[in-house]
Amino acid sequence: MGRSMARQERAVRTRQEVLRAAAEVFDRRGFAAATMSEILSVAGLTKGAVYFHFASKEELAHAVIAEQSTWAEQVDWSAPGFQAVIDVSVAYARALLDDPFIRATVRLVIEHGAFEAPDVEPWRVFIDMARQLLQRAEEAGDLLPGLDLDQAAAVVTASFTGIQLTSQVLAGRADLLERITAWWKLLLPGLVTPERLLTLDPGGSSRVAARTAARPAS
Amino acid sequence: MGRSMARQERAVRTRQEVLRAAAEVFDRRGFAAATMSEILSVAGLTKGAVYFHFASKEELAHAVIAEQSTWAEQVDWSAPGFQAVIDVSVAYARALLDDPFIRATVRLVIEHGAFEAPDVEPWRVFIDMARQLLQRAEEAGDLLPGLDLDQAAAVVTASFTGIQLTSQVLAGRADLLERITAWWKLLLPGLVTPERLLTLDPGGSSRVAARTAARPAS
Repeated sequence: MGRSMARQERAVRTRQEVLRAAAEVFDRRGFAAATMSEILSVAGLTKGAVYFHFASKEELAHAVIAEQSTWAEQVDWSAPGFQAVIDVSVAYARALLDDPFIRATVRLVIEHGAFEAPDVEPWRVFIDMARQLLQRAEEAGDLLPGLDLDQAAAVVTASFTGIQLTSQVLAGRADLLERITAWWKLLLPGLVTPERLLTLDPGGSSRVAARTAARPAS
Repeated sequence: MGRSMARQERAVRTRQEVLRAAAEVFDRRGFAAATMSEILSVAGLTKGAVYFHFASKEELAHAVIAEQSTWAEQVDWSAPGFQAVIDVSVAYARALLDDPFIRATVRLVIEHGAFEAPDVEPWRVFIDMARQLLQRAEEAGDLLPGLDLDQAAAVVTASFTGIQLTSQVLAGRADLLERITAWWKLLLPGLVTPERLLTLDPGGSSRVAARTAARPAS
Protein backbone atom coordinates (compact mmCIF):
# COMPACT_ATOMS: atom_id res chain seq x y z
CA MET A 1 0.00 0.00 0.00
CA GLY A 2 2.72 2.47 1.00
CA ARG A 3 4.77 1.44 -1.96
CA SER A 4 1.82 1.82 -4.29
CA MET A 5 1.06 5.30 -2.91
CA ALA A 6 4.66 6.38 -3.37
CA ARG A 7 4.59 5.05 -6.91
CA GLN A 8 1.38 6.94 -7.58
CA GLU A 9 2.78 10.20 -6.19
CA ARG A 10 5.90 9.75 -8.29
CA ALA A 11 3.72 9.18 -11.36
CA VAL A 12 1.75 12.39 -10.68
CA ARG A 13 5.00 14.32 -10.19
CA THR A 14 6.50 12.92 -13.36
CA ARG A 15 3.35 13.76 -15.29
CA GLN A 16 3.58 17.38 -14.05
CA GLU A 17 7.27 17.57 -14.97
CA VAL A 18 6.52 16.34 -18.47
CA LEU A 19 3.65 18.82 -18.83
CA ARG A 20 5.80 21.72 -17.67
CA ALA A 21 8.59 20.77 -20.08
CA ALA A 22 6.04 20.42 -22.89
CA ALA A 23 4.58 23.85 -22.04
CA GLU A 24 8.04 25.42 -22.25
CA VAL A 25 8.81 23.80 -25.58
CA PHE A 26 5.38 24.53 -27.11
CA ASP A 27 5.64 28.16 -25.92
CA ARG A 28 9.08 28.49 -27.54
CA ARG A 29 8.66 26.45 -30.73
CA GLY A 30 4.95 26.02 -31.41
CA PHE A 31 3.26 22.71 -32.06
CA ALA A 32 4.66 22.00 -35.54
CA ALA A 33 8.32 22.53 -34.66
CA ALA A 34 8.23 21.04 -31.13
CA THR A 35 9.69 17.54 -30.90
CA MET A 36 9.21 14.82 -28.29
CA SER A 37 12.99 14.55 -27.99
CA GLU A 38 13.34 18.24 -27.03
CA ILE A 39 10.54 17.81 -24.48
CA LEU A 40 12.32 14.73 -23.08
CA SER A 41 15.55 16.66 -22.88
CA VAL A 42 13.98 19.68 -21.10
CA ALA A 43 12.15 17.38 -18.67
CA GLY A 44 15.36 15.39 -18.07
CA LEU A 45 13.35 12.18 -18.30
CA THR A 46 13.64 8.97 -20.27
CA LYS A 47 11.49 8.18 -23.27
CA GLY A 48 9.76 5.41 -21.32
CA ALA A 49 8.80 7.73 -18.44
CA VAL A 50 7.23 10.23 -20.84
CA TYR A 51 5.46 7.79 -23.16
CA PHE A 52 3.94 6.07 -20.10
CA HIS A 53 1.90 9.27 -19.63
CA PHE A 54 1.56 10.66 -23.13
CA ALA A 55 1.57 8.54 -26.27
CA SER A 56 2.17 11.49 -28.62
CA LYS A 57 2.93 15.18 -29.01
CA GLU A 58 -0.77 15.61 -29.81
CA GLU A 59 -1.77 14.13 -26.43
CA LEU A 60 0.72 16.39 -24.67
CA ALA A 61 -0.70 19.46 -26.41
CA HIS A 62 -4.23 18.57 -25.32
CA ALA A 63 -3.04 18.05 -21.71
CA VAL A 64 -1.29 21.44 -21.69
CA ILE A 65 -4.45 23.11 -23.04
CA ALA A 66 -6.57 21.35 -20.41
CA GLU A 67 -4.59 23.22 -17.74
CA GLN A 68 -6.32 26.40 -18.94
CA SER A 69 -9.56 25.17 -17.36
CA THR A 70 -7.67 24.85 -14.07
CA TRP A 71 -6.63 28.49 -14.37
CA ALA A 72 -10.21 29.56 -15.10
CA GLU A 73 -11.44 27.74 -11.96
CA GLN A 74 -8.89 29.45 -9.70
CA VAL A 75 -9.43 33.01 -10.82
CA ASP A 76 -10.86 35.65 -8.45
CA TRP A 77 -14.45 36.61 -9.33
CA SER A 78 -15.05 38.65 -6.21
CA ALA A 79 -15.15 42.18 -7.67
CA PRO A 80 -18.69 43.58 -7.90
CA GLY A 81 -20.70 43.37 -11.13
CA PHE A 82 -18.90 44.38 -14.31
CA GLN A 83 -15.62 45.08 -12.51
CA ALA A 84 -15.16 41.29 -12.27
CA VAL A 85 -15.21 41.02 -16.09
CA ILE A 86 -12.38 43.55 -16.29
CA ASP A 87 -10.49 42.02 -13.36
CA VAL A 88 -10.56 38.51 -14.84
CA SER A 89 -9.25 39.86 -18.16
CA VAL A 90 -6.42 41.64 -16.33
CA ALA A 91 -5.65 38.51 -14.28
CA TYR A 92 -5.43 36.50 -17.50
CA ALA A 93 -3.16 39.11 -19.06
CA ARG A 94 -0.89 38.85 -16.00
CA ALA A 95 -0.89 35.06 -16.30
CA LEU A 96 0.19 35.43 -19.93
CA LEU A 97 3.14 37.53 -18.79
CA ASP A 98 4.14 35.23 -15.91
CA ASP A 99 3.20 31.69 -16.76
CA PRO A 100 4.67 29.57 -19.59
CA PHE A 101 1.70 27.19 -19.26
CA ILE A 102 -0.76 29.92 -20.21
CA ARG A 103 1.52 31.20 -22.99
CA ALA A 104 1.90 27.69 -24.42
CA THR A 105 -1.87 27.21 -24.28
CA VAL A 106 -2.52 30.42 -26.16
CA ARG A 107 0.05 29.55 -28.80
CA LEU A 108 -1.32 26.02 -29.23
CA VAL A 109 -4.92 27.18 -29.30
CA ILE A 110 -4.23 29.91 -31.85
CA GLU A 111 -1.76 28.09 -34.11
CA HIS A 112 -2.74 24.48 -33.94
CA GLY A 113 -6.31 24.95 -32.75
CA ALA A 114 -7.15 27.62 -35.28
CA PHE A 115 -5.43 26.33 -38.33
CA GLU A 116 -4.73 22.61 -38.11
CA ALA A 117 -7.34 20.84 -36.04
CA PRO A 118 -9.93 23.31 -34.77
CA ASP A 119 -10.84 22.36 -31.21
CA VAL A 120 -13.52 24.68 -29.90
CA GLU A 121 -13.30 23.52 -26.27
CA PRO A 122 -10.56 25.89 -25.00
CA TRP A 123 -12.33 28.83 -26.67
CA ARG A 124 -15.65 27.76 -25.13
CA VAL A 125 -14.10 27.77 -21.64
CA PHE A 126 -13.42 31.48 -21.99
CA ILE A 127 -16.63 32.41 -23.77
CA ASP A 128 -18.63 30.59 -21.05
CA MET A 129 -16.65 32.34 -18.31
CA ALA A 130 -17.30 35.73 -19.95
CA ARG A 131 -21.00 34.83 -20.34
CA GLN A 132 -21.31 33.98 -16.62
CA LEU A 133 -19.46 37.14 -15.56
CA LEU A 134 -21.69 39.25 -17.82
CA GLN A 135 -24.77 37.55 -16.35
CA ARG A 136 -23.61 38.61 -12.86
CA ALA A 137 -22.98 42.15 -14.13
CA GLU A 138 -26.52 42.21 -15.55
CA GLU A 139 -27.96 41.04 -12.22
CA ALA A 140 -26.03 43.87 -10.55
CA GLY A 141 -27.75 46.33 -12.91
CA ASP A 142 -24.48 47.29 -14.61
CA LEU A 143 -25.35 46.47 -18.23
CA LEU A 144 -27.14 48.58 -20.79
CA PRO A 145 -30.72 47.36 -21.24
CA GLY A 146 -31.34 44.97 -24.13
CA LEU A 147 -27.75 43.78 -24.42
CA ASP A 148 -27.40 40.31 -26.00
CA LEU A 149 -25.19 38.49 -23.45
CA ASP A 150 -24.10 35.74 -25.86
CA GLN A 151 -23.00 38.27 -28.45
CA ALA A 152 -21.29 40.40 -25.82
CA ALA A 153 -19.40 37.39 -24.41
CA ALA A 154 -18.28 36.45 -27.92
CA VAL A 155 -17.11 39.98 -28.73
CA VAL A 156 -15.29 40.42 -25.41
CA THR A 157 -13.34 37.14 -25.64
CA ALA A 158 -12.56 37.55 -29.34
CA SER A 159 -11.37 41.13 -28.88
CA PHE A 160 -9.20 40.12 -25.92
CA THR A 161 -7.57 37.45 -28.11
CA GLY A 162 -6.75 40.03 -30.74
CA ILE A 163 -5.46 42.58 -28.22
CA GLN A 164 -3.07 40.12 -26.61
CA LEU A 165 -1.88 38.77 -29.97
CA THR A 166 -1.19 42.27 -31.26
CA SER A 167 0.69 43.19 -28.09
CA GLN A 168 2.78 40.03 -28.47
CA VAL A 169 3.73 40.83 -32.07
CA LEU A 170 4.32 44.55 -31.73
CA ALA A 171 5.83 44.69 -28.24
CA GLY A 172 6.61 41.18 -27.01
CA ARG A 173 3.62 41.72 -24.65
CA ALA A 174 5.48 44.55 -22.84
CA ASP A 175 2.46 46.87 -23.33
CA LEU A 176 -0.22 44.22 -22.75
CA LEU A 177 -1.76 45.78 -19.62
CA GLU A 178 -1.86 49.26 -21.19
CA ARG A 179 -3.54 47.82 -24.29
CA ILE A 180 -6.14 46.01 -22.18
CA THR A 181 -6.94 49.27 -20.37
CA ALA A 182 -7.23 51.25 -23.65
CA TRP A 183 -9.49 48.52 -25.07
CA TRP A 184 -11.85 48.53 -22.06
CA LYS A 185 -12.08 52.33 -22.17
CA LEU A 186 -13.40 52.15 -25.73
CA LEU A 187 -15.62 49.08 -25.28
CA LEU A 188 -17.25 49.92 -21.93
CA PRO A 189 -19.67 52.63 -23.22
CA GLY A 190 -21.31 49.99 -25.43
CA LEU A 191 -21.73 47.56 -22.53
CA VAL A 192 -22.44 49.32 -19.24
CA THR A 193 -24.79 52.07 -18.06
CA PRO A 194 -23.41 55.65 -18.05
CA GLU A 195 -23.66 55.72 -14.21
CA ARG A 196 -21.70 52.47 -13.76
CA LEU A 197 -19.13 53.66 -16.33
CA LEU A 198 -18.02 56.38 -13.92
CA THR A 199 -17.19 53.89 -11.13
CA LEU A 200 -15.40 51.16 -13.10
CA ASP A 201 -11.62 50.91 -13.26
CA PRO A 202 -10.71 49.85 -16.85
CA GLY A 203 -7.20 48.93 -15.67
CA GLY A 204 -8.50 46.38 -13.15
CA SER A 205 -9.40 47.05 -9.52
CA SER A 206 -6.75 47.22 -6.80
CA ARG A 207 -7.86 43.70 -5.92
CA VAL A 208 -6.45 42.27 -9.15
CA ALA A 209 -3.65 44.79 -9.45
CA ALA A 210 -2.24 43.57 -6.14
CA ARG A 211 -2.49 39.90 -7.03
CA THR A 212 -0.01 37.90 -9.04
CA ALA A 213 -0.87 35.04 -11.40
CA ALA A 214 -2.75 32.10 -9.88
CA ARG A 215 0.14 29.82 -10.87
CA PRO A 216 3.56 30.83 -9.54
CA ALA A 217 6.00 32.07 -12.17
CA SER A 218 8.64 29.54 -13.13
CA MET B 1 13.38 43.97 -77.94
CA GLY B 2 10.11 42.08 -78.66
CA ARG B 3 11.73 38.88 -77.45
CA SER B 4 12.96 40.57 -74.28
CA MET B 5 9.48 42.00 -73.60
CA ALA B 6 7.89 38.61 -74.07
CA ARG B 7 10.44 37.09 -71.73
CA GLN B 8 9.73 39.77 -69.14
CA GLU B 9 5.98 39.26 -69.38
CA ARG B 10 6.47 35.53 -69.02
CA ALA B 11 8.63 36.13 -65.94
CA VAL B 12 5.94 38.34 -64.37
CA ARG B 13 3.29 35.72 -65.13
CA THR B 14 5.43 32.93 -63.71
CA ARG B 15 6.08 34.96 -60.58
CA GLN B 16 2.32 35.45 -60.10
CA GLU B 17 1.67 31.74 -60.65
CA VAL B 18 4.27 30.84 -58.05
CA LEU B 19 2.82 33.37 -55.59
CA ARG B 20 -0.71 32.07 -56.08
CA ALA B 21 0.43 28.47 -55.57
CA ALA B 22 2.36 29.52 -52.47
CA ALA B 23 -0.71 31.36 -51.12
CA GLU B 24 -2.83 28.22 -51.57
CA VAL B 25 -0.28 26.01 -49.83
CA PHE B 26 0.41 28.47 -46.97
CA ASP B 27 -3.36 28.91 -46.46
CA ARG B 28 -3.84 25.11 -46.28
CA ARG B 29 -0.70 24.03 -44.40
CA GLY B 30 0.78 27.05 -42.62
CA PHE B 31 4.39 28.14 -42.92
CA ALA B 32 6.00 25.35 -40.89
CA ALA B 33 4.37 22.46 -42.76
CA ALA B 34 4.42 24.01 -46.26
CA THR B 35 7.15 22.65 -48.54
CA MET B 36 8.71 24.08 -51.68
CA SER B 37 8.00 20.80 -53.44
CA GLU B 38 4.25 21.06 -52.76
CA ILE B 39 4.30 24.68 -53.97
CA LEU B 40 6.14 23.55 -57.15
CA SER B 41 3.60 20.82 -57.67
CA VAL B 42 0.58 23.14 -57.24
CA ALA B 43 2.16 25.74 -59.55
CA GLY B 44 2.99 23.03 -62.11
CA LEU B 45 6.41 24.61 -62.58
CA THR B 46 9.96 23.35 -62.46
CA LYS B 47 12.28 23.92 -59.55
CA GLY B 48 14.43 26.23 -61.68
CA ALA B 49 11.48 28.44 -62.66
CA VAL B 50 10.48 28.92 -59.03
CA TYR B 51 13.94 29.39 -57.55
CA PHE B 52 14.69 31.99 -60.23
CA HIS B 53 12.09 34.20 -58.45
CA PHE B 54 12.25 33.04 -54.85
CA ALA B 55 15.30 31.56 -53.19
CA SER B 56 13.41 30.13 -50.22
CA LYS B 57 10.08 29.44 -48.56
CA GLU B 58 10.82 32.45 -46.33
CA GLU B 59 11.10 34.75 -49.37
CA LEU B 60 7.85 33.37 -50.76
CA ALA B 61 6.07 34.01 -47.47
CA HIS B 62 7.25 37.64 -47.44
CA ALA B 63 6.11 38.11 -51.05
CA VAL B 64 2.65 36.69 -50.25
CA ILE B 65 2.36 39.00 -47.24
CA ALA B 66 3.44 41.99 -49.36
CA GLU B 67 0.32 41.43 -51.49
CA GLN B 68 -1.72 42.63 -48.48
CA SER B 69 -0.47 46.17 -49.11
CA THR B 70 -1.84 45.86 -52.65
CA TRP B 71 -5.23 44.96 -51.22
CA ALA B 72 -5.10 47.91 -48.83
CA GLU B 73 -4.37 50.29 -51.72
CA GLN B 74 -7.33 49.05 -53.78
CA VAL B 75 -10.00 49.23 -51.11
CA ASP B 76 -12.93 51.65 -51.37
CA TRP B 77 -12.65 54.55 -48.89
CA SER B 78 -15.52 56.55 -50.35
CA ALA B 79 -18.11 56.17 -47.58
CA PRO B 80 -18.50 59.33 -45.46
CA GLY B 81 -16.64 59.72 -42.15
CA PHE B 82 -16.76 56.77 -39.78
CA GLN B 83 -18.82 54.64 -42.17
CA ALA B 84 -15.60 54.14 -44.19
CA VAL B 85 -13.91 52.52 -41.16
CA ILE B 86 -16.76 50.00 -40.94
CA ASP B 87 -16.91 49.51 -44.72
CA VAL B 88 -13.19 48.76 -45.00
CA SER B 89 -13.44 46.19 -42.19
CA VAL B 90 -16.38 44.54 -43.97
CA ALA B 91 -14.51 44.59 -47.29
CA TYR B 92 -11.54 42.89 -45.62
CA ALA B 93 -13.83 40.30 -44.05
CA ARG B 94 -15.25 39.57 -47.51
CA ALA B 95 -11.73 39.29 -48.92
CA LEU B 96 -10.94 36.74 -46.18
CA LEU B 97 -13.93 34.68 -47.31
CA ASP B 98 -13.16 34.92 -51.04
CA ASP B 99 -9.44 35.23 -51.52
CA PRO B 100 -6.81 32.58 -50.69
CA PHE B 101 -4.11 35.29 -50.87
CA ILE B 102 -5.66 37.22 -47.99
CA ARG B 103 -6.29 34.03 -45.99
CA ALA B 104 -2.69 32.90 -46.49
CA THR B 105 -1.44 36.32 -45.41
CA VAL B 106 -3.49 36.24 -42.23
CA ARG B 107 -2.28 32.73 -41.41
CA LEU B 108 1.36 33.64 -42.09
CA VAL B 109 1.14 36.90 -40.17
CA ILE B 110 -0.53 35.29 -37.15
CA GLU B 111 1.40 32.01 -37.01
CA HIS B 112 4.81 32.79 -38.34
CA GLY B 113 4.77 36.54 -37.77
CA ALA B 114 3.47 36.32 -34.22
CA PHE B 115 5.43 33.40 -32.94
CA GLU B 116 8.52 32.71 -35.01
CA ALA B 117 9.91 35.85 -36.51
CA PRO B 118 7.80 38.85 -35.51
CA ASP B 119 7.51 41.16 -38.49
CA VAL B 120 5.55 44.26 -37.56
CA GLU B 121 5.20 45.57 -41.12
CA PRO B 122 1.97 43.76 -42.16
CA TRP B 123 0.35 44.77 -38.85
CA ARG B 124 1.48 48.38 -39.34
CA VAL B 125 -0.17 48.51 -42.78
CA PHE B 126 -3.54 47.92 -41.13
CA ILE B 127 -2.97 50.07 -38.08
CA ASP B 128 -1.91 52.96 -40.35
CA MET B 129 -4.94 52.45 -42.56
CA ALA B 130 -7.24 52.49 -39.51
CA ARG B 131 -5.44 55.60 -38.22
CA GLN B 132 -6.00 57.45 -41.51
CA LEU B 133 -9.65 56.40 -41.70
CA LEU B 134 -10.20 57.53 -38.09
CA GLN B 135 -8.54 60.85 -38.89
CA ARG B 136 -11.05 61.35 -41.71
CA ALA B 137 -13.88 60.41 -39.36
CA GLU B 138 -12.62 62.98 -36.86
CA GLU B 139 -12.47 65.66 -39.56
CA ALA B 140 -16.08 64.80 -40.43
CA GLY B 141 -17.03 65.43 -36.77
CA ASP B 142 -18.01 61.81 -36.19
CA LEU B 143 -15.72 60.98 -33.25
CA LEU B 144 -16.24 61.57 -29.55
CA PRO B 145 -14.17 64.54 -28.38
CA GLY B 146 -10.80 63.73 -26.82
CA LEU B 147 -10.44 60.31 -28.45
CA ASP B 148 -6.82 59.15 -28.80
CA LEU B 149 -6.62 58.19 -32.48
CA ASP B 150 -3.49 56.02 -32.11
CA GLN B 151 -5.04 54.01 -29.31
CA ALA B 152 -8.35 53.75 -31.17
CA ALA B 153 -6.59 52.52 -34.35
CA ALA B 154 -4.69 49.93 -32.30
CA VAL B 155 -7.83 48.70 -30.53
CA VAL B 156 -9.88 48.53 -33.75
CA THR B 157 -7.29 46.52 -35.71
CA ALA B 158 -6.45 44.22 -32.79
CA SER B 159 -10.11 43.53 -32.05
CA PHE B 160 -10.79 42.81 -35.73
CA THR B 161 -7.95 40.28 -35.71
CA GLY B 162 -9.47 38.52 -32.72
CA ILE B 163 -13.00 38.56 -34.17
CA GLN B 164 -11.95 37.00 -37.46
CA LEU B 165 -9.72 34.41 -35.73
CA THR B 166 -12.56 33.39 -33.41
CA SER B 167 -14.99 33.12 -36.31
CA GLN B 168 -12.49 30.94 -38.15
CA VAL B 169 -12.07 28.55 -35.21
CA LEU B 170 -15.68 28.35 -34.09
CA ALA B 171 -17.46 28.50 -37.44
CA GLY B 172 -14.96 28.17 -40.28
CA ARG B 173 -15.63 31.91 -40.87
CA ALA B 174 -19.28 31.16 -41.82
CA ASP B 175 -20.50 33.76 -39.27
CA LEU B 176 -17.72 36.30 -39.90
CA LEU B 177 -19.94 39.11 -41.22
CA GLU B 178 -22.47 38.69 -38.37
CA ARG B 179 -19.63 38.79 -35.82
CA ILE B 180 -18.19 41.96 -37.38
CA THR B 181 -21.62 43.61 -37.14
CA ALA B 182 -22.12 42.56 -33.48
CA TRP B 183 -18.61 43.83 -32.67
CA TRP B 184 -19.21 47.27 -34.26
CA LYS B 185 -22.54 47.60 -32.42
CA LEU B 186 -20.73 47.24 -29.09
CA LEU B 187 -17.65 49.29 -29.96
CA LEU B 188 -19.28 52.23 -31.74
CA PRO B 189 -20.69 53.98 -28.60
CA GLY B 190 -17.10 54.37 -27.32
CA LEU B 191 -15.92 55.90 -30.60
CA VAL B 192 -18.57 58.05 -32.28
CA THR B 193 -20.94 60.79 -31.17
CA PRO B 194 -24.48 59.74 -30.15
CA GLU B 195 -25.90 61.62 -33.15
CA ARG B 196 -23.62 59.90 -35.66
CA LEU B 197 -24.29 56.53 -34.00
CA LEU B 198 -27.89 56.70 -35.22
CA THR B 199 -26.90 57.06 -38.87
CA LEU B 200 -24.11 54.47 -39.12
CA ASP B 201 -24.69 50.99 -40.52
CA PRO B 202 -22.60 48.57 -38.37
CA GLY B 203 -23.01 45.86 -41.05
CA GLY B 204 -21.38 48.00 -43.73
CA SER B 205 -23.13 50.42 -46.08
CA SER B 206 -24.90 49.23 -49.24
CA ARG B 207 -21.79 50.45 -51.07
CA VAL B 208 -19.63 47.70 -49.58
CA ALA B 209 -22.43 45.17 -49.28
CA ALA B 210 -22.89 45.30 -53.05
CA ARG B 211 -19.19 44.96 -53.81
CA THR B 212 -17.24 41.76 -53.97
CA ALA B 213 -13.59 41.37 -52.94
CA ALA B 214 -11.06 43.54 -54.74
CA ARG B 215 -9.32 40.40 -56.02
CA PRO B 216 -11.55 37.94 -57.91
CA ALA B 217 -12.15 34.62 -56.17
CA SER B 218 -10.10 31.74 -57.53
